Amino acid sequence: MAGGRSERRKIPRTPASSQALWIYGYHAVSAALKNSNRMAKRVLFLHDILDQVEPLFAHIDIKAEPASRDQITKVLPPGAVHQGIAALMSPLPNISLEDICRDARILPNALIVILDRVSDPQNIGAIIRSASVFGAMAVIIQDRNAPQITGVIAKTASGGIEHVPLVRVINLSRAMETLKKNGFWCIGLDSEATTDLEQVKRSSHSVLVLGAEGAGLRRLVREKCDELVRIQGTGGLTSLNVSNAAAVALYELRQVSNS
Amino acid sequence: MAGGRSERRKIPRTPASSQALWIYGYHAVSAALKNSNRMAKRVLFLHDILDQVEPLFAHIDIKAEPASRDQITKVLPPGAVHQGIAALMSPLPNISLEDICRDARILPNALIVILDRVSDPQNIGAIIRSASVFGAMAVIIQDRNAPQITGVIAKTASGGIEHVPLVRVINLSRAMETLKKNGFWCIGLDSEATTDLEQVKRSSHSVLVLGAEGAGLRRLVREKCDELVRIQGTGGLTSLNVSNAAAVALYELRQVSNS
Repeated sequence: MAGGRSERRKIPRTPASSQALWIYGYHAVSAALKNSNRMAKRVLFLHDILDQVEPLFAHIDIKAEPASRDQITKVLPPGAVHQGIAALMSPLPNISLEDICRDARILPNALIVILDRVSDPQNIGAIIRSASVFGAMAVIIQDRNAPQITGVIAKTASGGIEHVPLVRVINLSRAMETLKKNGFWCIGLDSEATTDLEQVKRSSHSVLVLGAEGAGLRRLVREKCDELVRIQGTGGLTSLNVSNAAAVALYELRQVSNS
Repeated sequence: MAGGRSERRKIPRTPASSQALWIYGYHAVSAALKNSNRMAKRVLFLHDILDQVEPLFAHIDIKAEPASRDQITKVLPPGAVHQGIAALMSPLPNISLEDICRDARILPNALIVILDRVSDPQNIGAIIRSASVFGAMAVIIQDRNAPQITGVIAKTASGGIEHVPLVRVINLSRAMETLKKNGFWCIGLDSEATTDLEQVKRSSHSVLVLGAEGAGLRRLVREKCDELVRIQGTGGLTSLNVSNAAAVALYELRQVSNS
């Protein structure tokens, strides 16, 4: 908890999980250490890269521990590419759909991503990264179908999880109803749609809804969309990887909200 | 070789490698079996999915072998997600830069991707997939810095390697010179650029040049670009994953060549 830590500006809301999590990789650790809503419990680093990582230690109150490559590898899941640094971090604050709706009301533009049964951690991480680049407020997933935030998601998001909350809801179509009542226009990506992404309705508050590769959007989620659009290709294949589709659509919608 | 196979329309050019390669995953195998420029040497499949895969067998002359999950796993690299099907394929024909330039001359529009030191097979595969969706002619890499086509690239490309050749060259800046002499406009993606991607020069023949994450474009490659553009974000992070950046830029350039 942040009690007694006067330099921390915000009081965390209820944590999403009571479990601390090892974050690894330079960009992911750097963003986590700079996030005033969470605390570092341990930081391990390879002494060889002290010059590179030392500036990060200004953001923490504990002493970072020089360690061997093996010692770092041992605290992480197998195969984790840690680039010489890992930090055991207190959980991120839990952000609810209601928090997002309240914050969105006072914004001139807002963009949200909903993932319907996208479960691959690398895709989720890459989508959170793109959401952060293009200024989306949140990524919403269904609690039941989605993995917890893991080191893989954090690493792939390259710091994005510190900027864009991953909001878990019980029911996606109900969440879409709530967002629509709050002035959001829900845009589903669907390869069968007849409208091209470029022709999407310009709206100040938009939700981009993406389904799993292959399966696409579930019927109820699709029916809740205000509009279905496709990313029109011209080549041999018809469908992008889901994180690439998300990046393209976020790029287009970011342009929309600026136009 | 295709000698004596009268149903094959094209004679393969020199193969890129004399090694046959195991391709796995439904989309990758499906596209490989349908590619008349290569031959299946063996096809293994889980009997449970016979209904789904049987139509593919119309494209081959050999007998596909029903197999156990273990038998399929055994012929593949560790961790390969094979979805119940794998095919040992003869190599893809070797396409040279000169072949590409010759083909491009008679096309009204042409789009090519150059990767400068992008070495992660999953990123290369995802970029080949997006290149195929957006109708790019080829992905060019430097021979020395790039991996051979592997099962991982083929799987991530989801069939894209059958449509978009991965062309290996000795020297990237020399390849850019050749392309420029053949009427191509070379566009480098660079986070330090002052021109936004949306403002890119409209050209019938374009080359998109992407550098490795972090390192970016090497000096000589950057200097050979006719124009440098950035993907302007609005949020907490500044840089996309390289395959997501490629998808966004290909989307924008595809629009350009259609406009």
